[in-house]
Amino acid sequence: MNIKIFRNFSEIATLAPALKKDGRRLIPSDIGLIKNGSIVYNQEEILWVGPDSELPEDYKGIDSIDTTGKSCLPEIVDSHTHIVFGGDRAHEYSMRLNGATYEEIAAAGGGILNSMKGTNALSRSELLKLGQQRIRAIKSYGVGTIEIKSGYGLNFEKEYEISRIIHDLKNIVRPDVQIINTFMAAHAVPKEYASSYDYMKEVVLPLLDRLGEEQILDCVDIFHEKNYFSDEDVTSLFERAQRWNIPVKIHADEFNDNKGAILAAKYHALSADHLLSTGADGIAALKDSSTVATLLPGTGLFLGKTQANARAFLDAGVKVAIASDFNPGSCHCDNLLMVAALAAPIYKMNMAELWCAITLNAAHAVGIKSQGAIVPGLKPRFSIFNTDSIDRITYSWGKNLAI
Amino acid sequence: MNIKIFRNFSEIATLAPALKKDGRRLIPSDIGLIKNGSIVYNQEEILWVGPDSELPEDYKGIDSIDTTGKSCLPEIVDSHTHIVFGGDRAHEYSMRLNGATYEEIAAAGGGILNSMKGTNALSRSELLKLGQQRIRAIKSYGVGTIEIKSGYGLNFEKEYEISRIIHDLKNIVRPDVQIINTFMAAHAVPKEYASSYDYMKEVVLPLLDRLGEEQILDCVDIFHEKNYFSDEDVTSLFERAQRWNIPVKIHADEFNDNKGAILAAKYHALSADHLLSTGADGIAALKDSSTVATLLPGTGLFLGKTQANARAFLDAGVKVAIASDFNPGSCHCDNLLMVAALAAPIYKMNMAELWCAITLNAAHAVGIKSQGAIVPGLKPRFSIFNTDSIDRITYSWGKNLAI
Repeated sequence: MNIKIFRNFSEIATLAPALKKDGRRLIPSDIGLIKNGSIVYNQEEILWVGPDSELPEDYKGIDSIDTTGKSCLPEIVDSHTHIVFGGDRAHEYSMRLNGATYEEIAAAGGGILNSMKGTNALSRSELLKLGQQRIRAIKSYGVGTIEIKSGYGLNFEKEYEISRIIHDLKNIVRPDVQIINTFMAAHAVPKEYASSYDYMKEVVLPLLDRLGEEQILDCVDIFHEKNYFSDEDVTSLFERAQRWNIPVKIHADEFNDNKGAILAAKYHALSADHLLSTGADGIAALKDSSTVATLLPGTGLFLGKTQANARAFLDAGVKVAIASDFNPGSCHCDNLLMVAALAAPIYKMNMAELWCAITLNAAHAVGIKSQGAIVPGLKPRFSIFNTDSIDRITYSWGKNLAI
Repeated sequence: MNIKIFRNFSEIATLAPALKKDGRRLIPSDIGLIKNGSIVYNQEEILWVGPDSELPEDYKGIDSIDTTGKSCLPEIVDSHTHIVFGGDRAHEYSMRLNGATYEEIAAAGGGILNSMKGTNALSRSELLKLGQQRIRAIKSYGVGTIEIKSGYGLNFEKEYEISRIIHDLKNIVRPDVQIINTFMAAHAVPKEYASSYDYMKEVVLPLLDRLGEEQILDCVDIFHEKNYFSDEDVTSLFERAQRWNIPVKIHADEFNDNKGAILAAKYHALSADHLLSTGADGIAALKDSSTVATLLPGTGLFLGKTQANARAFLDAGVKVAIASDFNPGSCHCDNLLMVAALAAPIYKMNMAELWCAITLNAAHAVGIKSQGAIVPGLKPRFSIFNTDSIDRITYSWGKNLAI
């Protein structure tokens, strides 16, 4: 197996202590900083990491890449995006700032149904091309694994097509970028259906069966909220997903404390996302589960709303991830590093918690346990930045230091 | 005079209605939108603006630039920056997030005195080079006028040098970029001085006299705050500035309601900046003055603090500007467009108020009355974006659409 060596990173954040703690509260030193550090790896796994001065003799003769002046972290993972969509909703964003009500925006053709229209107006190849462009942009910030949700087709044929497009994207961009294919036809209830139950029965569940048979899905997700999908819809979806052995995720407690976090824990969901209104019982349920709490601070900023109480989750010992939620309506921002830099002071997170939230915990939030820290045995997936100080990555707001 | 014509911008925001309102509360249509618009100008002034279908016959034969698919706004002005500094404070940023107190940061060599050290460690030519790099970056976002404050030298010689550096920068980058040279030796009181009064007497006022004689200053600024500079310091500085006929600005009411806004109004300051703690009396004083309220939302985000009550100022009919406050300690962000995009939902500003805050009002905040709207007679200073929709500029968070 071909051995590769990075020698003399100015800084490496291994997150090895955070990996050991497995969700327990992190202190700043849990970032696992190594100065003048080297990494030995092959295609499959990391073989050695440590200060260059301690590099084992056996590795010293091997050709290496000099990474002096650069910094290395476990690969950044964006664990929550909706990037297969057509059209944009810039005008709706301005309308909202100009004081338009939700109803006025809907009357002007805005909202999620606007993106449904824009998406259905594009051909498969157009959507594929847009997806590739967006992945390229996300990758340019140093993000190497991207979860992509379907959900702007909202009819059987288009939702099927979108899940297949995500599958195609996965094959096109691997191994450079890892794509997680999340099925989220249960994103909103189209007007043609009398109830969410009808839409579940006629579209979501049969489509899940079809895609389950085709074995292209990595996750299943659903928008659990009043006027969207009910407890019963979640239950029927999650049980069907179990039948296909596909892990689940949930958009939970965004507008109301719907006990979505509790449902997530009950079904061993990989993650519960948003969580702006989760009560103490929901936090307790997550603490006792393996479910990651995925917070989406960009969305709160974009909508001018309050933010999730991150410290309540962190202090309780819940695993917290941060993701971009890049989508055309509520957070038109594809730059997870920028979102994370903004989130740190808002959420009062320390730097170990912050980096863990977009590497290790974000990997867990998409079901990947084999990466997220730079320790022997884990996969050699890194994010490398053109700075001698990891501090500078989040300090330099709006600058892209990724290589 | 050489006549130039832009033909067929997809959108032009003239801000002509906002110019007429002169600070009174803006409604969304005050953005003054023209679709498929053209602009005729010469080196000195705008001659005509309107829908291309109404372009006067006389202009039709003249060579023009086709700007289809692009959008045009009055030039973006960053009216509050501190970009002449050495070193950075990335580690301090992380320390703060990791829970260090102000005292611990100061003990570790952090704070403004850290930047003073970093700045004094650099030669004049190094600082000049850094300044040019930073101006280039700021310009790349579409900003054409930049106010630069001195204030990281904090001794007579270095503060003199910094004001001269800003003057050199002004000459180097004109006319492409306009620099406003603001004297702010009264940024903090160095440890060597027993009181702010002593530092004012020995450094700030004599240096202002010297630079006043050399006629290179555009503005004078001071940090009015407990443990920084007092009412008396402000009064002595502003009266000395009046003697040299240099307009004044003030860092006001950032940590406490020090009645800085009232002082600003009394001395006809161009702007009062920060204003997080300003009371109703301060807002009333600004309303009855020509002083612009310059808000710095990036700083609140960067420090994880509360934000100024923008609506209180806007609703009272105070002219509100937004600036980046780019500096090494409390807001390491040079991208005003990004800051403004983030600010709109936080401040609940409509799009006319938002654009006015970074064009027309920001120009007034640095004493420029001859630009800030696209109307005949004003200077032909524009910011042009590579999009057919102005809405998309602030909707696309973190993307740079400037040409």
